[in-house]
Amino acid sequence: MKPVLILTLAFLFMTSSFTSGQTSSVVEDFKPSSVNQPGKQYPMVNSEGRVRAQISAPNANLVQLDIGGVKYDMVKDENGVWTGTSAPQDDGFHYYQLNVDGASVPDPGTKYYYGAGRWGSGIEIPAHDQEFYAYKDVPHGTVNEHIYYSKLTESFRRAFVYTPAEYRTNPGKRFPVLYLQHGSFEDETGWSSQGHVNLILDNLIAEGNAEPMIIVMENGYAYKPNPSGQGRPMSVFEDVLITEVIPMIDTEYRTLSDREYRAIAGLSMGANQTMRITMNNLDKFSHYGGFSGTSNYPSSDKIDTKTFLNGAFDNGDEVNEKLDVLWLGMGTKEGEPFPGSIGAFKEMLEKQGIEYVYYESPETGHEWQTWRRSLYQYAPLLFK
Amino acid sequence: MKPVLILTLAFLFMTSSFTSGQTSSVVEDFKPSSVNQPGKQYPMVNSEGRVRAQISAPNANLVQLDIGGVKYDMVKDENGVWTGTSAPQDDGFHYYQLNVDGASVPDPGTKYYYGAGRWGSGIEIPAHDQEFYAYKDVPHGTVNEHIYYSKLTESFRRAFVYTPAEYRTNPGKRFPVLYLQHGSFEDETGWSSQGHVNLILDNLIAEGNAEPMIIVMENGYAYKPNPSGQGRPMSVFEDVLITEVIPMIDTEYRTLSDREYRAIAGLSMGANQTMRITMNNLDKFSHYGGFSGTSNYPSSDKIDTKTFLNGAFDNGDEVNEKLDVLWLGMGTKEGEPFPGSIGAFKEMLEKQGIEYVYYESPETGHEWQTWRRSLYQYAPLLFK
Repeated sequence: MKPVLILTLAFLFMTSSFTSGQTSSVVEDFKPSSVNQPGKQYPMVNSEGRVRAQISAPNANLVQLDIGGVKYDMVKDENGVWTGTSAPQDDGFHYYQLNVDGASVPDPGTKYYYGAGRWGSGIEIPAHDQEFYAYKDVPHGTVNEHIYYSKLTESFRRAFVYTPAEYRTNPGKRFPVLYLQHGSFEDETGWSSQGHVNLILDNLIAEGNAEPMIIVMENGYAYKPNPSGQGRPMSVFEDVLITEVIPMIDTEYRTLSDREYRAIAGLSMGANQTMRITMNNLDKFSHYGGFSGTSNYPSSDKIDTKTFLNGAFDNGDEVNEKLDVLWLGMGTKEGEPFPGSIGAFKEMLEKQGIEYVYYESPETGHEWQTWRRSLYQYAPLLFK
Repeated sequence: MKPVLILTLAFLFMTSSFTSGQTSSVVEDFKPSSVNQPGKQYPMVNSEGRVRAQISAPNANLVQLDIGGVKYDMVKDENGVWTGTSAPQDDGFHYYQLNVDGASVPDPGTKYYYGAGRWGSGIEIPAHDQEFYAYKDVPHGTVNEHIYYSKLTESFRRAFVYTPAEYRTNPGKRFPVLYLQHGSFEDETGWSSQGHVNLILDNLIAEGNAEPMIIVMENGYAYKPNPSGQGRPMSVFEDVLITEVIPMIDTEYRTLSDREYRAIAGLSMGANQTMRITMNNLDKFSHYGGFSGTSNYPSSDKIDTKTFLNGAFDNGDEVNEKLDVLWLGMGTKEGEPFPGSIGAFKEMLEKQGIEYVYYESPETGHEWQTWRRSLYQYAPLLFK
């Protein structure tokens, strides 16, 4: 039986590779991904949203394309070049990697992005609505890398600060400010890189659909020094933002510093953080945006407004008065605990008579296309 | 004889691996590289400047550390983790990669940099003089990503613009401008990433050793559209810089726009380009810095000033009058054609009685430590 078994396994293996990589149903209209390194043809994307990766690894035993939680076996040609094709992916940006004989590595064909806790490969599946973050011949703002020393964390920290085109051309004018946060295992680079914050705002502003605004993107991880190394590190992000970053931005940039001109938003972990920060500091913020997250995460239990966030939502009228915009959004393909926890939060808002805006990004999951669209929906509502 | 031969080869192979990877003379004081990804322990660097890389690749046959033009075989442990150690490297920043069964890939432990024609791994060998680009609690300038549409190339282009801290805090003041170029197979990101332009200037300015200045870092590759696809693409970088970038910067930033307040410098290919641009546009530039390159590259022949750059150096007195600073530098470990071509250029300058400053970076090659030091030497001489 043994030889038969081996042959059967070999056949299954080949069939399986064939199925995941090269089925006859694949539409052969692949083009290089828009976020490839200069001059690189691979990875490619087709009109179905499939990703085709390729790498030369003449002496490898097994190379896989690892995307969307699935590993696709790649196939080696006579020159030692491996090629593999994924199932269709959702519109927008995805992190992924290659696996070469057990080594999980970035694809040398792509530019690199910080997310999922590492700098690694990204790919862009062209979305039907990609025009809202396209490069257009409109006035472009700049994204400024801003280094500062934080006394609270006793470390150098970095924010990226978007200033609109008019900030350069109209030096007498002051601007409102949006503080915009990334998610867990991401950092301060996300929004201005894979998030396209600058292109989204440049386009909205040029169309007259958003107020020119400054956008500050900080790193949501900030810890008190812990020289003993004992216990869990204590997050001081709220203190860093409120007592260090906001005063610095208001001093060094031409801001409108009244609360009515200060908004905040964040995605996932950033939504959770910024909701807490907003409700703890209603004297400082007038607009809140929660992209794919709320502070009751990950619970989908009914919210008790007496205790939740120290009773911050218990007086609905006061919240309505303080918050010009309370905005929530998520993707239709997001899995639990997001629909459950955001749903429970919405129920609480409705019970309390608190006004809010709710948006669903069609056919996207807990990924950047949902958050790009969320910003595109949220920004026009600010500072009106 | 065959088995003996095979055993001998195997022995030689093992010995060779042993020698390059784990010799008894290696000083075991390795520390994580300063440019690792957050939380990553490897790669490490020791006090001799050796690099030790590590990667999990349980099913690989051969993994190599590829740095400084040498491939070092790595050794696999019982858990499938490969470790390898290089010979001592020069001080400063180096590009490198790993090779897994023939696949040349970035090391997933490091941050990524554009150079050598790809985004890939970098490592930092701590230099004895690293204080000049260290993070210090001094006022920090910002590095601004500036997108614009170029009519000449019919494409969106990007510059990075350093503005000194005083640009934010002293809004009535205008500043001189240095245009600073990268080398071949690099791009506009190099100087503000691995080049540390912002930290070098922040520190020099804080010490009172350089004038606060704006620094514009453009992409030196710019081509006229070539719809036919026939023939070589035609570089229009000089036109882009002179007719598009400089007017844009002088319009949108608070610059001092007289020629006496405009300097230029570049490294390697950028030195070659900027020397031509300077000599073609002496009405626009008053300071020139050539880091590891001159426009007679790669020739080391005696320069005929009647013909070289259309006779631009033929009248030495005129050059002395026009250029406040003509600065040349290179590393002592640079190989040909750099010493030869720069040497021939210096001989020409001396023959013509043209004043220049010459700097040699000790014990560094055609790499970023030479260029960081060159900027550190050049910037204090500007706009005096």
